[in-house]
Amino acid sequence: MPTHTQQSAVTAPVTVLGLGPMGRALAAAFLAAGVPTTVWNRTPGRDGELVERGALSARTAEEAVSASPLTVVCVVNYDASDAVLHDDDVTRALKGRTVVNLSADTPERARSAASWAAAHGVRYLDGAIMTPTTTIGTPHGVFIHSGEAALYEEHRPALEALGGTHTHLGEDIGRAAAYDVALLDIFWTAMTGYMHALALAKAEGISARELAPFAVGIGAILPEAFEESAVEVDNGTHSGEGNPITSAASTMAHVIHASEGHGIDAGVMRAAEGLVRRVIGEGHGADGPTRITELLGRR
Amino acid sequence: MPTHTQQSAVTAPVTVLGLGPMGRALAAAFLAAGVPTTVWNRTPGRDGELVERGALSARTAEEAVSASPLTVVCVVNYDASDAVLHDDDVTRALKGRTVVNLSADTPERARSAASWAAAHGVRYLDGAIMTPTTTIGTPHGVFIHSGEAALYEEHRPALEALGGTHTHLGEDIGRAAAYDVALLDIFWTAMTGYMHALALAKAEGISARELAPFAVGIGAILPEAFEESAVEVDNGTHSGEGNPITSAASTMAHVIHASEGHGIDAGVMRAAEGLVRRVIGEGHGADGPTRITELLGRR
Repeated sequence: MPTHTQQSAVTAPVTVLGLGPMGRALAAAFLAAGVPTTVWNRTPGRDGELVERGALSARTAEEAVSASPLTVVCVVNYDASDAVLHDDDVTRALKGRTVVNLSADTPERARSAASWAAAHGVRYLDGAIMTPTTTIGTPHGVFIHSGEAALYEEHRPALEALGGTHTHLGEDIGRAAAYDVALLDIFWTAMTGYMHALALAKAEGISARELAPFAVGIGAILPEAFEESAVEVDNGTHSGEGNPITSAASTMAHVIHASEGHGIDAGVMRAAEGLVRRVIGEGHGADGPTRITELLGRR
Repeated sequence: MPTHTQQSAVTAPVTVLGLGPMGRALAAAFLAAGVPTTVWNRTPGRDGELVERGALSARTAEEAVSASPLTVVCVVNYDASDAVLHDDDVTRALKGRTVVNLSADTPERARSAASWAAAHGVRYLDGAIMTPTTTIGTPHGVFIHSGEAALYEEHRPALEALGGTHTHLGEDIGRAAAYDVALLDIFWTAMTGYMHALALAKAEGISARELAPFAVGIGAILPEAFEESAVEVDNGTHSGEGNPITSAASTMAHVIHASEGHGIDAGVMRAAEGLVRRVIGEGHGADGPTRITELLGRR
């Protein structure tokens, strides 16, 4: 069984379960920070480069979690993490140890994972990684965490060995997953819009490289629009001053018309336009686009 | 009839048709730059502040376009600009003069506007404004133009009086509108994603102000993702290295599940997920998200 007791280190040893691109980046960052690191992956053969850098390769998940007081899990979703952790031998080995689950899933799944952990004497934190694999181990990584504050403080030195910024969002175990899912909602909706725009541009004889500098300009105005909209939403003001939602409706109609004129599916924009049309149909056409949030959130 | 001949000015006089928020910003920027400016709006009473700053208020559109060699049109769409310009008296008055139509619409409408102009002896340029009204008259405005290069050069000094950057995208008259519609596709899809994310966050007890700083962080990683994806699309490589589209599918499923679990419509993300599922169904699951562009653009 791997052991790190002979090694001197800044922090206690860490185990990483899951060696997809992100899991490998996490393990590499721990190793680079001098943290004794044990790794395991369901499908073998992913740990070669990590072992060269000093990682200990566990033969089983049970052996892996037994090697460290802290296990960081990074797999595709909670079905996958449950499949590893709910094995009887693994669960027994985890008793009294801490799991930080950095896999992405819904807040509901984070809460049920925490309930399972509590029922089996496993100390549990939930988290999410908001930036690409290339940022791990650099100052540009963004990590969010939730769960018991004292437990987070206990493992903060190990987590901070991953570099970047770490934010504890609160003791509600579902909070990191809630931020994660909302932020990924933004990212993937925006990326789908960009993928669609590139297809539309191409149909008009504009290459992706030609459009990209202007697309970057659009990306650059989003942060300010995000901040201003947040104030409107929290205040419930939904001001359309200079930017009424009727203007968005008109623009969306142009996008749909231009796309479908080229035979390009406009289903995403049609769904967006449907929300805007509902807002206008309710008499809120002079309001700003944050009325969409109010419409969607209505109970 | 208003005349600017007694005034000294850096550029020839300009007429602005359409005094919505953007039209008013354009006229104010011309005036601030010392350009003699005549203004007109279909609905009267919008020009008070502009007249105080020195604008000449025309009683009719015909009078307005007769006052300047260059008329800048900024109305809601080309149905609205046609309704003004296709009036017989206005068309006659425009003969030999130049119209720059900065109204937003589809490339198809820009092309038919140019055909109409050519048939009536009106010199015609098309353009679009890519930044909010608050950027007009500042270095932050972004304007794109298309049409005959010599005509653009002739009016460039007047257009540059609006501040910001002006790019002539080519002689194809539909090109500015094509960029415009593609860029607005990105903007409004992203904004709809953000509006949705705020509703989802709220259902999880997270205020818009709490989510916003992280949303700004997501916005900040989009430009790099846009640039990288553009290369993949133009090269037809669609690399999924570190970011396979199966991972996007998993994330999108989390967003849909978390939203619908709160009774929040997830139609936009469902449409996006549908595209991703088609890509995966075709055996491209290990590729990157730019496969969406390839799928959409297929003939």
